[in-house]
Amino acid sequence: MAMRLERAVVVGASGGIGGALAVALADRGTRVHALSRRGVAADARLAAGIIDIEDETSIADAAAALRAEGPLDLVLVATGLLHADRIAPEKSHRQLSAASFERYFAINATGPALVAKHFLPLLRSDRPSVFAALSARVGSIGDNRLGGWYGYRASKAALNMIVKTLAVELARTHPQAACVALHPGTVATDLSQPFLRGVPADRRFLPDIAAKHLLDVIADLSAAESGSILAWDGSRITP
Amino acid sequence: MAMRLERAVVVGASGGIGGALAVALADRGTRVHALSRRGVAADARLAAGIIDIEDETSIADAAAALRAEGPLDLVLVATGLLHADRIAPEKSHRQLSAASFERYFAINATGPALVAKHFLPLLRSDRPSVFAALSARVGSIGDNRLGGWYGYRASKAALNMIVKTLAVELARTHPQAACVALHPGTVATDLSQPFLRGVPADRRFLPDIAAKHLLDVIADLSAAESGSILAWDGSRITP
Repeated sequence: MAMRLERAVVVGASGGIGGALAVALADRGTRVHALSRRGVAADARLAAGIIDIEDETSIADAAAALRAEGPLDLVLVATGLLHADRIAPEKSHRQLSAASFERYFAINATGPALVAKHFLPLLRSDRPSVFAALSARVGSIGDNRLGGWYGYRASKAALNMIVKTLAVELARTHPQAACVALHPGTVATDLSQPFLRGVPADRRFLPDIAAKHLLDVIADLSAAESGSILAWDGSRITP
Repeated sequence: MAMRLERAVVVGASGGIGGALAVALADRGTRVHALSRRGVAADARLAAGIIDIEDETSIADAAAALRAEGPLDLVLVATGLLHADRIAPEKSHRQLSAASFERYFAINATGPALVAKHFLPLLRSDRPSVFAALSARVGSIGDNRLGGWYGYRASKAALNMIVKTLAVELARTHPQAACVALHPGTVATDLSQPFLRGVPADRRFLPDIAAKHLLDVIADLSAAESGSILAWDGSRITP
């Protein structure tokens, strides 16, 4: 099935993958609301708006501003934290810190959950629609062979659970909708930059290629996939 | 294999299941350090100590106080939050709140992770030993059919990931150790009390029965189970 994507919201549209997704959606003729903390969109076709996923009032305000324009076909949450000034993925349990965990959970799990709270009521229910959040393969518990990256992994596992729980609830009101977590692959962005050294060139994507992969997966979604974690090539990832 | 449990630490020993586990261990001849926020143990055989899993200094102090007494066979984290004064499991995404999520993650995921950080160095490596944390079947993403309970589910999924990641790391230094998440079943405690109404009497356990089940599972553990989520009857739960 090819999803009709007339109107979409991208949350985190100033990020590497979020920005590329917003542009790729516009390329396909979708009207895109590109939301980010600074509210700036790189492309004149995008309708820029402000959102801070750590501030529920800001999320509620962003949703309220869009409500009058009618229902959404796609809500895409592309925010995420892997490293920051005082936060780096832990190599050992000796490096665990409550402050880092709090930041990982707030941005990678709670933020997308609050976006769902305020934007799912805008999702159309009269034909197929999609709520998607960027997750990561390293958020798969079953797939975890390497260890490390405790806070990031735990927050993405939490996000995967939130997506699954939303899918169960959404099925009651939006039987044609799909609510999914997406793994974009390893993408050359600010988020991944410090960790790309060991990744072979043919296994890291540029953001516009990653965006194309993800939109192809989204365009093919049906309610049967709702609750799943899907990789950039459409394959399912075990929780 | 029957694990030798000469010396154990129970964190959260004033809780319904934690208290029963401490007593059941003492019944089996284990020397038990029963740690809790108030530092009171119900049973004179237990060595009571203070710990606050939301305060890393308190966790580090508790570990330091035990270090001189030699290695531990078992570290059991039995803390957990399901409901509190202003926190109740969410029935719908409309009830999601950043404040509740923060509490769930802090107590159910970050706390046990910090206990691991400070207590794993005390775990013996010269013969089989165990690090176990109480999780819950509703923390299984694959098993989630009912939805709801967003914050609790997400925090237990995060905990399951932390346990798996610890297991990968622990295998390098403690090849005979098992690091597991345990589902105690539905147990009649303060934590579950508001939610027992719909549970048939033959499917809810008293804490001392639940403790017996869990210790039987622990006594049979081997390194092959490390990283798993195990139910009270020893069966594996999918992440």
